[in-house]
Amino acid sequence: MQLAILLYDRFTSLDAVGPFELLSRLPGAETVFVAEKAGPVRNDQDNLSLVADRSLAEVPAPDIVLVPGGPGSRRALADETLLEWLRTADATSTWTTSVCTGSLVLAGAGLLKGRRAASHWLSLDLLGRLGAEPTGERVVFDGKYVTAAGVSSGIDMALHLIGRIAGHEVAQTIQLLTEYDPQPPYDAGSPEKAPAEIVASWRAQGADDDTVRTGGR
Amino acid sequence: MQLAILLYDRFTSLDAVGPFELLSRLPGAETVFVAEKAGPVRNDQDNLSLVADRSLAEVPAPDIVLVPGGPGSRRALADETLLEWLRTADATSTWTTSVCTGSLVLAGAGLLKGRRAASHWLSLDLLGRLGAEPTGERVVFDGKYVTAAGVSSGIDMALHLIGRIAGHEVAQTIQLLTEYDPQPPYDAGSPEKAPAEIVASWRAQGADDDTVRTGGR
Repeated sequence: MQLAILLYDRFTSLDAVGPFELLSRLPGAETVFVAEKAGPVRNDQDNLSLVADRSLAEVPAPDIVLVPGGPGSRRALADETLLEWLRTADATSTWTTSVCTGSLVLAGAGLLKGRRAASHWLSLDLLGRLGAEPTGERVVFDGKYVTAAGVSSGIDMALHLIGRIAGHEVAQTIQLLTEYDPQPPYDAGSPEKAPAEIVASWRAQGADDDTVRTGGR
Repeated sequence: MQLAILLYDRFTSLDAVGPFELLSRLPGAETVFVAEKAGPVRNDQDNLSLVADRSLAEVPAPDIVLVPGGPGSRRALADETLLEWLRTADATSTWTTSVCTGSLVLAGAGLLKGRRAASHWLSLDLLGRLGAEPTGERVVFDGKYVTAAGVSSGIDMALHLIGRIAGHEVAQTIQLLTEYDPQPPYDAGSPEKAPAEIVASWRAQGADDDTVRTGGR
């Protein structure tokens, strides 16, 4: 079972590495990071490069496709080389997945038309304009399409997916080995729970491209 | 404020990238990945390289040091070049931190003598033999030393640390922007909560080096 994680310029690191850390522990999984060209790909904050071991052309038919989000998703969702690879990979994939604004890229490829899908809470409107049916849920399954909300939600998505693929015991084992027993000291992880003034301030900035660097969308 | 994240051969990716994604959003933070030599460093599963932008020698006095864990920690905790860098960096750091078995490396450098510290649940005994006072807690503050339990716990550690450094509102903002509103579908993230037979099976394998690859310790 081959898992391909797509990298593109200005992706958000945790969107990719969170679900990677869990999914790559699936028994029998071969995980490969891919990008238009093999080599280092820079993140959204310009302070970390992940290496794509293979080019898109070398990985035409993965079983699982994972598209992370990030400010670079705005360019990626109109990059015909990426989109064509996604359409081809999706034609034979078992699961096509995204984290955060990775769903915008799937939508740009035309893969989420009329499908329920998640995204970063500040990008749900744009997801709708791209033809999907946005929901504020954290992890959304619609057929073989699995989309997660912002950044850290990819970890929850991975556990759900591992349960579907390999069963509850494997998923629980991977949860135990990665000690995923979250105990955040605050309860501000969604717009429904965070202090209203923080949410309002980010919604007001929502259309401003400069804010996405800090927001990691 | 400079944050240095140490990479070494066979580190666990999420140990580094989880807290990185949150801490690097601290206002005024400059984050740099470092390793003995600058360049790509391979992870524990041999399927991902992160690039260290700078060598240890180039980053002698970071304000925050973060040491991830991984099977490679067993070699790192006796690597005099790494340990000497850690001792020097620690002499002027504001915070010296670790995730998972990164605490073994801090202990190997002699920095946790008699200090309460966390580690991956399967490595707490070894942490004790290295001179620290191991605890099963998820995030442990002892003076300027902050240690987290296995893999994903670095995200919680980052939020705690951001709160201490920049206050609750900044921490809540970063939690909101990374949508850290965990909703794992299972409750198996610690040895107290996971099914007993899974825990027992991993405890029995605890001393077997081959298991650490899958366990990511």
